[in-house]
Amino acid sequence: MPEASANIGVVGLAVMGSNLARNLASREGNTVAIFNRSHAKTEALLAEHPEAGFVPTASYAEFAASLQKPRTAIIMVKAGVPTDAVIQSLVDVFEPGDIIVDGGNAYFPDTIRREKAVRETGINFVGAGISGGEEGALLGPSIMPGGSDESWVTLGPILRSIAAIAEGEPCVTHVGHDGAGHFVKMVHNGIEYADMQLIAEAYDLIRRGTGKTPAEIADIFAEWNRGELESYLIEITAEVLRQIDAETGQPLVDIIVDQAGAKGTGAWTVQTALALGVPVSGIAEATFARSLSSHPEQRAVAAGLPGPEDEFEVEDTDAFIEDVRLALFASKIVAYSQGFDEIRAGAAEYDWQIDLGAISKIWRGGCIIRAQFLNRIADAYAAEPELPALLTAPYFADALSRGQAAWRRVVIAAAQAGIPAPAFSSSLSYYDGIRAERLPAALVQGQRDFFGAHTYKRIDKEGTFHTLWSGDRTEIEAEDTH
Amino acid sequence: MPEASANIGVVGLAVMGSNLARNLASREGNTVAIFNRSHAKTEALLAEHPEAGFVPTASYAEFAASLQKPRTAIIMVKAGVPTDAVIQSLVDVFEPGDIIVDGGNAYFPDTIRREKAVRETGINFVGAGISGGEEGALLGPSIMPGGSDESWVTLGPILRSIAAIAEGEPCVTHVGHDGAGHFVKMVHNGIEYADMQLIAEAYDLIRRGTGKTPAEIADIFAEWNRGELESYLIEITAEVLRQIDAETGQPLVDIIVDQAGAKGTGAWTVQTALALGVPVSGIAEATFARSLSSHPEQRAVAAGLPGPEDEFEVEDTDAFIEDVRLALFASKIVAYSQGFDEIRAGAAEYDWQIDLGAISKIWRGGCIIRAQFLNRIADAYAAEPELPALLTAPYFADALSRGQAAWRRVVIAAAQAGIPAPAFSSSLSYYDGIRAERLPAALVQGQRDFFGAHTYKRIDKEGTFHTLWSGDRTEIEAEDTH
Repeated sequence: MPEASANIGVVGLAVMGSNLARNLASREGNTVAIFNRSHAKTEALLAEHPEAGFVPTASYAEFAASLQKPRTAIIMVKAGVPTDAVIQSLVDVFEPGDIIVDGGNAYFPDTIRREKAVRETGINFVGAGISGGEEGALLGPSIMPGGSDESWVTLGPILRSIAAIAEGEPCVTHVGHDGAGHFVKMVHNGIEYADMQLIAEAYDLIRRGTGKTPAEIADIFAEWNRGELESYLIEITAEVLRQIDAETGQPLVDIIVDQAGAKGTGAWTVQTALALGVPVSGIAEATFARSLSSHPEQRAVAAGLPGPEDEFEVEDTDAFIEDVRLALFASKIVAYSQGFDEIRAGAAEYDWQIDLGAISKIWRGGCIIRAQFLNRIADAYAAEPELPALLTAPYFADALSRGQAAWRRVVIAAAQAGIPAPAFSSSLSYYDGIRAERLPAALVQGQRDFFGAHTYKRIDKEGTFHTLWSGDRTEIEAEDTH
Repeated sequence: MPEASANIGVVGLAVMGSNLARNLASREGNTVAIFNRSHAKTEALLAEHPEAGFVPTASYAEFAASLQKPRTAIIMVKAGVPTDAVIQSLVDVFEPGDIIVDGGNAYFPDTIRREKAVRETGINFVGAGISGGEEGALLGPSIMPGGSDESWVTLGPILRSIAAIAEGEPCVTHVGHDGAGHFVKMVHNGIEYADMQLIAEAYDLIRRGTGKTPAEIADIFAEWNRGELESYLIEITAEVLRQIDAETGQPLVDIIVDQAGAKGTGAWTVQTALALGVPVSGIAEATFARSLSSHPEQRAVAAGLPGPEDEFEVEDTDAFIEDVRLALFASKIVAYSQGFDEIRAGAAEYDWQIDLGAISKIWRGGCIIRAQFLNRIADAYAAEPELPALLTAPYFADALSRGQAAWRRVVIAAAQAGIPAPAFSSSLSYYDGIRAERLPAALVQGQRDFFGAHTYKRIDKEGTFHTLWSGDRTEIEAEDTH
């Protein structure tokens, strides 16, 4: 058995795990034990990166023996059954007080279940969302760890050492207990779906409205990236739009099949929001837009359905582009506001103490939705930690006020031109819904009372009421059946 | 022990169970055994309805003894733990070949689980969705039973005897195995959410656009109910809008608190659709509209956000109302098309043989979404059983073609006026998305390939590709990582 020379270990040496191990090894003070089910991968990583000073191990027992106490291991394997298998193997060789970190993309209820099971052994289990892909893992990801306070004492300094740095601060915070980290990572991904869909709609509207080429639109996005929309996704959109396919000489975006894939985290975000009663329409429309695109058999038969008779042509190109920019920003504010609502509701449901401002800060670097914009969210929660709806914070309310007329013009143009803009339209509907003095939900309550005796509340007095619709239509006080 | 004199039994005598038992007893050939955990309820029902000829029983053993073989019992208790408890009690006293029917609002995965467990005892378990509320249970509901073919032999005639009749046909069909019945009932409820939200938006637009009173709008709905929109929900909307609150003399709809409740089936429908990759944006927006309305703390702070500067006033009232009618019909087609997509996808996923035309027929009577319209759906599937998207069937495609210009004008008016119309707008976006020749999903795939090496397909050749974005930006063939 080796001496306990490593302060951190990594299990699972596929590209994410290898890169995270190299990242850890490159930071002062870390010695990294590595283990992989197939030992050849361990040896390959060792040979390729002698500079890392890895401690290779060939069994779980050897892995455990190579780690200083409290032993701390990060698992980077596939979510699901492989993760459960590795956890069990580590539990078998670890001791109370040791720390097992799942750095994969687990569904947060699984993390809650695992944390509970592992906790009974006295070992700490930490579900940590890690965002930033392969490059982030190597150079500095955004890290969203859950788990116990005890584990954070050991884990905090290690994760801070490898996280991305944004404005001098490492992009990691102890999100909350058990599944909180993976929950927040899930919502991060949901917001990412919305962000990407909004960008795609903006591109589509500009292209079809102005006839500009992808390369010209790339310039527009590059320009936007110098303003309030500055973000990684806007930046890479310009790169993608500028790319020319070598084989055909056409813009690559015209060569790519227009069916968007998904790995499920957008759907999880919306499913969870539905369970929590939080409207996340922007994320939902983005998720649905991907699935709509991926049903070619339906699109083929629907292709003959008619659109507007008139050709779509924008009169003032520059004004239209500026309108789209404002609509994109306004819709983005709605998507983030909805996403933060979901985090707040999740924290209340699962009893997590989540600092929403801290979440926005750790998303400023390393992850896919990194953006200047997140500083404004941090400001909003710093000014009012109990803010009931992000979009009402002064900075965002002001942006919405400035942008709403343009936003309306863009949604109108899309409807008029027959261009699908589900996320733009849905976000505007949400905006007009949440600010409405009176909603037709009252009629829905009336209908529900009529056919199902679901009862209603009155605006003028306490209590729960039911109209005897199939009787004499008088009103009675009723038990609240919701 | 009593002699086996009953051919059907009901367990759970709350209002739905009592009414169903009375319905059963009123049909020729049925003798109904009744049982309730608290015996007082059994005695009360017996005393109140001597005409029913109920066979009262005071224990599960007595209940079982009173039933002819194969014993057939319908459970009408609360979903969840109470249902599981009653099932276990019946399994204890029933024999192989007997039939246990859960007529409650179970979540279909629970029904799948229960069917599997009960099947091992040789007893048949049938999850049956029953729609129509208290009145439907008494006079004739729409019934959506799952379960085995064997159980249907006995159960079919009994359920046909109590179901609603639409155009001479009883509103019941053997939907498919195990959870198929509760699945279809769930989607029925999801569609109901969309239908109700669309009606609410239509009302809101007309009211705010034309200044008409609820009573005047009731007349409009009554008028609509004589045309292609004819349906129970349109009918009762007119009734609700006409209702005057006795206490204040105001329209009741103005006295009801505008926060819509929900019992979760809309959320289930959307959650399931997300898992199946089916866009059900109309149902989702309807579900979210209810949850948005039910967050008064957010609405209070958002009330100050600005809307359009100009007052909304419709120039030609009649033309606008007709536009709204067409928009409502078009949006409704989208909601139903999405709902039937979900049933088809569910059938494929869970290996159910569901006849979509038969489903539309059993919804024509007894249930909340009953409507003439459902005959057109039946026609569409009769003409083309493998129809990939309902909205492309000739009748619906024609209605959409006729309505799309009006639909666009209504969505434009809503955006211009600052009136939330999430379901109208979302349905139009879906329509424009599914008929689009080219979607910006290609850009989304490009972004995904850029930050996550998720790869893409090309329009001009087979294979899966990746651009070396952080390298020399050449393209390589890649393993398909979706």
